[in-house]
Amino acid sequence: MYDFIIIGGGCSGLSGGMYGTRLGLKTLILAEMPGGLITTTHLVENWPGVITTSGPDLANALYQHAVAAGAEIKSERARKIEKLPEVNGVPRFKVITGSGEYETKTVLIATGTVHKKLGVPGEKELENRGVSYCALCDGAFFKGKVVAVVGGGDSAAKEALFLSEHASKVYIVVRKNVLRAEPINAQRISKNEKIEILYNTEIEEILGTEAVEKVRFKNGQELEMQGVFLAIGHTAQTDLAKELGVALNEKGEIIINRKTETNIPGVFSAGDCCDTEFKQAITGAAEAVTASYYAYNVCTSESINQ
Amino acid sequence: MYDFIIIGGGCSGLSGGMYGTRLGLKTLILAEMPGGLITTTHLVENWPGVITTSGPDLANALYQHAVAAGAEIKSERARKIEKLPEVNGVPRFKVITGSGEYETKTVLIATGTVHKKLGVPGEKELENRGVSYCALCDGAFFKGKVVAVVGGGDSAAKEALFLSEHASKVYIVVRKNVLRAEPINAQRISKNEKIEILYNTEIEEILGTEAVEKVRFKNGQELEMQGVFLAIGHTAQTDLAKELGVALNEKGEIIINRKTETNIPGVFSAGDCCDTEFKQAITGAAEAVTASYYAYNVCTSESINQ
Repeated sequence: MYDFIIIGGGCSGLSGGMYGTRLGLKTLILAEMPGGLITTTHLVENWPGVITTSGPDLANALYQHAVAAGAEIKSERARKIEKLPEVNGVPRFKVITGSGEYETKTVLIATGTVHKKLGVPGEKELENRGVSYCALCDGAFFKGKVVAVVGGGDSAAKEALFLSEHASKVYIVVRKNVLRAEPINAQRISKNEKIEILYNTEIEEILGTEAVEKVRFKNGQELEMQGVFLAIGHTAQTDLAKELGVALNEKGEIIINRKTETNIPGVFSAGDCCDTEFKQAITGAAEAVTASYYAYNVCTSESINQ
Repeated sequence: MYDFIIIGGGCSGLSGGMYGTRLGLKTLILAEMPGGLITTTHLVENWPGVITTSGPDLANALYQHAVAAGAEIKSERARKIEKLPEVNGVPRFKVITGSGEYETKTVLIATGTVHKKLGVPGEKELENRGVSYCALCDGAFFKGKVVAVVGGGDSAAKEALFLSEHASKVYIVVRKNVLRAEPINAQRISKNEKIEILYNTEIEEILGTEAVEKVRFKNGQELEMQGVFLAIGHTAQTDLAKELGVALNEKGEIIINRKTETNIPGVFSAGDCCDTEFKQAITGAAEAVTASYYAYNVCTSESINQ
């Protein structure tokens, strides 16, 4: 019997696991993807206290910290969360993975997001053959080649900057007439001769037989290139939560309050999968820390109730 | 004219300053006490990603990060915040220090807390002559001596553990019949032969002529000792906020919402001075990061309003 099961091993899950363990909770982190989405980021400059690092290095530091604190971490995918009858007024849940079943008093859902798809012909067919969702993972394969980054936000900007270290030319394909990059990244892009922004432009089809060869835009223009990196946003991974009956907002994000409580007592949420507007690694980590405290209150209420 | 003035240079203020600057806000941190309260802590093991460090080292990392991002930091005490008339629907404030006056569109109040006083005879008279609020600052003066830590929480526990590295004997004076230490610190205390917990015990008077010589308890008992460390909690420093008309709760803490907004548009609050229940360095930092985002929204609304 666990006190606190955390589903998700990203910045939020690992920080919450470290804290929960320090608070004396028997804590299990189910980390299907240890480190989470930040491991696909090559440059992290906004984790307070760390002037510059990489996503994998930050994730590793958080992982090692959770381990040092005594958290148990299993690389298992949670398939289902079931509500069990309460005992002495304290909730009970069963978390089912591919390898086992675990009972717990409280659950923190920190399952993050998945990349949004563009939904154009060629995208699925050429995935991992030129179509990628992670410049850090795949950028080095494009040395001296021409690539495009699709997206209008800061993620697209950062992907383009990283890719410019390898590729000979990087297009940023922006649907609207503005790239909403952080000022510091917008500045870097304006000084980077390899990067060209195509505004008011949308991809119609990604073409190629064995691998990406060219891209056709809705305006009829075609450009030869070998790589297409998609940075068009994320969708909260909340199927598990929904099945349990956790309330979601219209975007499919888990609704939490300032205590990170969901509508189900004993179930908390933190990080990119919840309805916080400004989602950053540090804010998700702090939400998970907050969750560990209220989970501790739920667990210790048992001895009071008895 | 600044976009974002942060009052307070602790973990929250420094993190918010780093983020605000990255978001392109002209940011000034007024840090009367650079580093803030954490600089009085010898052992920090709960800043995610840093397994173990000292308060001063963590504060320094946050300070250097804010500087590297381009934040301006002045070691000045803010004496007053005045509301000025709005311009194009965007707030304006004037912050007055001992050395100057600064105008800004938004303000983040991250002024933290001050130590609570015990209010017994001898406390004030013998301050810095045996009576201390900071084991890290003063512990080394008590090598081989007998000291007491007064308080029933985890801060008292940590102060006692630190002092046991110097003193020959450390009493923890707890008013109630329980020490609410984090489990890991409770364990360390139970294994530490120098530390003795006195439950259900309150100090009546601290005695000494030139320096602390002994303590008399309400039960009449007296103990000879050379140091008394007070770790009985904190009071939010919210006089500046109150004078401006910021709403406080019954504890005197600044009331914020999930966006860290106060009741006054353009005024945000973060960290130990606000009404968050579980106050940690990481949660305060994340609050300040959140504040920087909503301050950015306020500042950029000007161009929309024009």
